[in-house]
Amino acid sequence: MQRGVDARLSINQRSVPSLSVPALIEACTRHGYRNIGLWREPVAATGPGEVARLVERAELRVTSLCRGGWFLAPDASARRAREDDNRRAVDEAAAIGADCLALVCGPALTKDLAAARREVADAIATLAEYAREVGVPLALEPMHPLYCGDRSVVVTLAQATAIAQGAGPGVGVLLDSYHLWWDPDLEAALADAAGLVHGLQLADWLAPPPHHLNGRGMLGEGTIDLRRFCQLVEELTAYRGPIEVEIFNEELWATDAEEALARIATSFASEVG
Amino acid sequence: MQRGVDARLSINQRSVPSLSVPALIEACTRHGYRNIGLWREPVAATGPGEVARLVERAELRVTSLCRGGWFLAPDASARRAREDDNRRAVDEAAAIGADCLALVCGPALTKDLAAARREVADAIATLAEYAREVGVPLALEPMHPLYCGDRSVVVTLAQATAIAQGAGPGVGVLLDSYHLWWDPDLEAALADAAGLVHGLQLADWLAPPPHHLNGRGMLGEGTIDLRRFCQLVEELTAYRGPIEVEIFNEELWATDAEEALARIATSFASEVG
Repeated sequence: MQRGVDARLSINQRSVPSLSVPALIEACTRHGYRNIGLWREPVAATGPGEVARLVERAELRVTSLCRGGWFLAPDASARRAREDDNRRAVDEAAAIGADCLALVCGPALTKDLAAARREVADAIATLAEYAREVGVPLALEPMHPLYCGDRSVVVTLAQATAIAQGAGPGVGVLLDSYHLWWDPDLEAALADAAGLVHGLQLADWLAPPPHHLNGRGMLGEGTIDLRRFCQLVEELTAYRGPIEVEIFNEELWATDAEEALARIATSFASEVG
Repeated sequence: MQRGVDARLSINQRSVPSLSVPALIEACTRHGYRNIGLWREPVAATGPGEVARLVERAELRVTSLCRGGWFLAPDASARRAREDDNRRAVDEAAAIGADCLALVCGPALTKDLAAARREVADAIATLAEYAREVGVPLALEPMHPLYCGDRSVVVTLAQATAIAQGAGPGVGVLLDSYHLWWDPDLEAALADAAGLVHGLQLADWLAPPPHHLNGRGMLGEGTIDLRRFCQLVEELTAYRGPIEVEIFNEELWATDAEEALARIATSFASEVG
């Protein structure tokens, strides 16, 4: 007998990348998922208007749109192209009614990490003005220091919170257990992020990760105390919104999507629910 | 024409693991290296007494012995075995006159990271009493958060410094660019570590690392501003001792050791010297 899917659980599209947005929405309804996190490329493939219609009809909540960011560029023209694309991402998030637009804060283009961090903060403050006009919350995602060289110069929650605060209203953070679990200052950083949490994602940490990008673990199969992580987030930040499961894992992607959706719901119930 | 090897440069044995200790010492003399960092297993293979004789004859400085640590154990008997082994490591460091014994601070055996961190701090404080009697400085090595699941629960310099301070005289830290470069609080952490730096190691960060353990980069081939890293260490901690190059890299290990020693000296001169 299938247990009902936890009402807080949200399925991030990248956990089942073989499904188009319509197919994922159909599967969510069948499995009992009430929330989804979407990605720009598949949303574009279906069309944001059609996605909005489908999620409304299915009574799903869109917990995030992934992703804007990638702010740094080698010259002014490339930088303007990035700014244009990020404004389009804000528009797409608005069109599908996403709770927030997730932002990747990097990578650096030179060895000057401090300068890259300042430039990222400036770019976010600029984008925030547009996002406030449109009414889309921006969510900075601090990434595991593993990605400092190729993805994000923002690698701690404390850093992300400080940048979000500097960028003004509507800018917050996206918490992911995979990116944050190692931080010895996590509790203090969570307390400082109170009221700024726009989203929460989970994946487990496999030791060692079997792949640089796509080696995240199914809940319960790694080293993270996920229940405690969620409790800390709730207690220290007062975030009580949906919890996305986002597992980049090539083995999971090779399994049947139906089975993946069932396993994710089961693991969430046993590890967090 | 070969340039002389920089007087601060120390070759860590794991950069040229194909060489026995006697072969490495012979090569150091020939290339003009004045410092070496050694590992326990090859030291044991030659015998600590013989190693001491060889390094003295070659007028080499032993900048570190790697490594003790791995403190946590599943039961009391295994824990005592770890304590015994760590005291032997202290004795070996004393026998070969190493500047310090490097310590790996983990990994955790359960998902309770906070408890593991407390246990590691307690174990270091206990080992420190013995190390002080013998006169061997202990060097806690904060490791990149990439290794939080399988190597070290100490992942920031701030954490290592706090544990070192708690363990009393003779306990300090070992800085490694590969492990620390990403830290947004690095400068403050270096300032707090002033006077506690027992050693400095360099490797570059390849983005992404080609291997979990053995994918470190030759100086200049990665994303780290190594010159600035060394300058910050000198300015903020007042450390002016030798600088080890320790590159775990399977490609480097597959090259001829003579060529590896020459390349390391050349890259050090161009990136740091």
